[in-house]
Amino acid sequence: MSEDTNQSRRKVIKAAGAVGAGMLFSGPMTAFASQEGSAGKIMSRGYAAFDTSGVLKPWTFERRPVGDNDVLIDIKFASICHSDIHQEKGHWGPQSYPQVPGHEMVGIVAAVGSKVTNFKVGDRAGVGCMVGGCKECSTDEEQYLPDTLFTYGNPDPRSPTGITQGGYSNNIVVEEHFAVHVPESISFEQAAPLLCAGITTYSPLMRADLKPGTKVGVAGIGGLGHMAVKIAASKGAEVYAFTTSASKVDDIKSFGAKEVIVVDDELKALNNYRGQLDYMIATIPYQFNVGAYASTVKPYGTFTLVGMPIDYEINLSAISLAASRVNFNTSLIGGMKETQEVVDYCASNDVLPKIELITAEQINEAWENVVNKQARYRYVIDAATF
Amino acid sequence: MSEDTNQSRRKVIKAAGAVGAGMLFSGPMTAFASQEGSAGKIMSRGYAAFDTSGVLKPWTFERRPVGDNDVLIDIKFASICHSDIHQEKGHWGPQSYPQVPGHEMVGIVAAVGSKVTNFKVGDRAGVGCMVGGCKECSTDEEQYLPDTLFTYGNPDPRSPTGITQGGYSNNIVVEEHFAVHVPESISFEQAAPLLCAGITTYSPLMRADLKPGTKVGVAGIGGLGHMAVKIAASKGAEVYAFTTSASKVDDIKSFGAKEVIVVDDELKALNNYRGQLDYMIATIPYQFNVGAYASTVKPYGTFTLVGMPIDYEINLSAISLAASRVNFNTSLIGGMKETQEVVDYCASNDVLPKIELITAEQINEAWENVVNKQARYRYVIDAATF
Repeated sequence: MSEDTNQSRRKVIKAAGAVGAGMLFSGPMTAFASQEGSAGKIMSRGYAAFDTSGVLKPWTFERRPVGDNDVLIDIKFASICHSDIHQEKGHWGPQSYPQVPGHEMVGIVAAVGSKVTNFKVGDRAGVGCMVGGCKECSTDEEQYLPDTLFTYGNPDPRSPTGITQGGYSNNIVVEEHFAVHVPESISFEQAAPLLCAGITTYSPLMRADLKPGTKVGVAGIGGLGHMAVKIAASKGAEVYAFTTSASKVDDIKSFGAKEVIVVDDELKALNNYRGQLDYMIATIPYQFNVGAYASTVKPYGTFTLVGMPIDYEINLSAISLAASRVNFNTSLIGGMKETQEVVDYCASNDVLPKIELITAEQINEAWENVVNKQARYRYVIDAATF
Repeated sequence: MSEDTNQSRRKVIKAAGAVGAGMLFSGPMTAFASQEGSAGKIMSRGYAAFDTSGVLKPWTFERRPVGDNDVLIDIKFASICHSDIHQEKGHWGPQSYPQVPGHEMVGIVAAVGSKVTNFKVGDRAGVGCMVGGCKECSTDEEQYLPDTLFTYGNPDPRSPTGITQGGYSNNIVVEEHFAVHVPESISFEQAAPLLCAGITTYSPLMRADLKPGTKVGVAGIGGLGHMAVKIAASKGAEVYAFTTSASKVDDIKSFGAKEVIVVDDELKALNNYRGQLDYMIATIPYQFNVGAYASTVKPYGTFTLVGMPIDYEINLSAISLAASRVNFNTSLIGGMKETQEVVDYCASNDVLPKIELITAEQINEAWENVVNKQARYRYVIDAATF
């Protein structure tokens, strides 16, 4: 893309008033306090946690002005990840409140900063778990950089609330590097879950070097797990899905699993698969018996955990892991390049989440359902209802 | 080896009375109860735990008769592993007592069963963590087979005491498959620690595919760790040794470490090595901060734990391990083929443990020193003092 073309794509924040019904200013145009731009703060409506109760309430708040490298996105849909619940309940450490969760959101670009080159007003765009921190990255794994800003709850002096505020809202300001394009071939509502559930499972699955016939285990078939099944199956893998919910069996087969194994508390069903799988990914967001699940993987194979339990703590048995001879690792989402890749891949190959659309008022009920394993399989909030 | 030669090497138990001062029978030759042979039980003197106190006392007991596939070894030296302490104190689960610990022992073959082909009376032999279970193994990793008998505390109906009894004693009966030859070029006392400390570190180090210049971290420089330093250095690796004992620094450099890093409780010293190492092996036999140590390994490198903590339990931070992008695994000793290999390798290359000879009466004091990090670096018991 030529520099001239880039210029023509740029829309500074002054033009923003003309676009996007979700866009408001907090008052008269004021001098932009930081060095990033010159526009005013952005009013936003969303649902926020106010304490560790796990109950969200409507909240109107200000977002930082759109800086030179930022895009303002008019959110159309945002989806619910179990991580939202963990974080707002304080399971991963103390939080600042009010805090708007949500790190899976898609919508339309409503304004761009003066230095933005990759987006123009009107583009379909998505945001995942990161919103800033890396201007000129020399890595494709921004999620592991120390200065990366995560989408909600991270201290951010540019934010009027002092922290980043997430996607359960009608708009978001994000550094352009951390937004991805959403192809026309996928609906907004089905694209949203790809921004975390999609990339979080896609990234380690791609490292597992899947080939047709590779035996892939997926443990925990919720929002992330059902995408893992679909992605792995789409790559030709033989998928063995392990769930504690017998009521999910038919669904999971329809997602492409070759076998669905219902696991009870004693985990006996795992014994039949000892040393059988080439690779396993576990999405279980609570403590579980790592060694028992790892035992289903062939010796010297790999077992990846992407679920993040309370306090991030995993207890595992050193002797059990030794017996399996399995390499255990954990993985955190994926980088921005790969996030774009998974969105494009899923859009092109019809690898789509199974979703349930809800209104903002239904969020609290949806959270309970997620915790109680009743979600089928991703709740997607219509942002018009915020 | 021809069948005739094999025959000539065989010494049945009837011949045993003529060899080895350490050999006694429990009384008149009685019919051998099992189907394994026809000889009487073996009297043994050793030191046993009688409860979880961690205090050992002299004990005289009977071992099973030497079966067709067994060798009787007149033990010359046995060394002390931290595992002995963990197991006898019940840290890994309830134990049967009296129980003689010890899984590093060397001595002279005093008798062989009628079907023994690999040993003859008078051979120098060593025994490690396994003593039976696999007659015709189709694996080189016997330690992971379900029916493998470990050297002490495992239920064994052939044993007069009902369990296997270990090496803190003057003799042992072991299936020949689980004995290794000890070359003349290494002393008995220096060979003993190779049977666990040697193989336990050698096996994962060999899987790490060490090349000259490979940066290898070793965390925890005790009996196992000091062998890890020596073995890795002998393979040309650049060894970075992490210890909590400043008093060990000079020793560890003399073992071949390029750098010795003294780590305090806050683990700050690890920060300087973030993402630097190609591989790390940790020998720490207690809970520790896995993620912090793993962070010293390059992304997508491997970190092996060979220490076995209380209850075998490791708590690790899923987010910290994700940030390191390191594969974590645990490893249990090594197979018999590789055990012979490490003994031969260390004997041929002068890769020898730093030992302190003690008498049986000093065992209890030595155990306290091991727990208190005062061992330098392997206590070896003179079996003549049992």
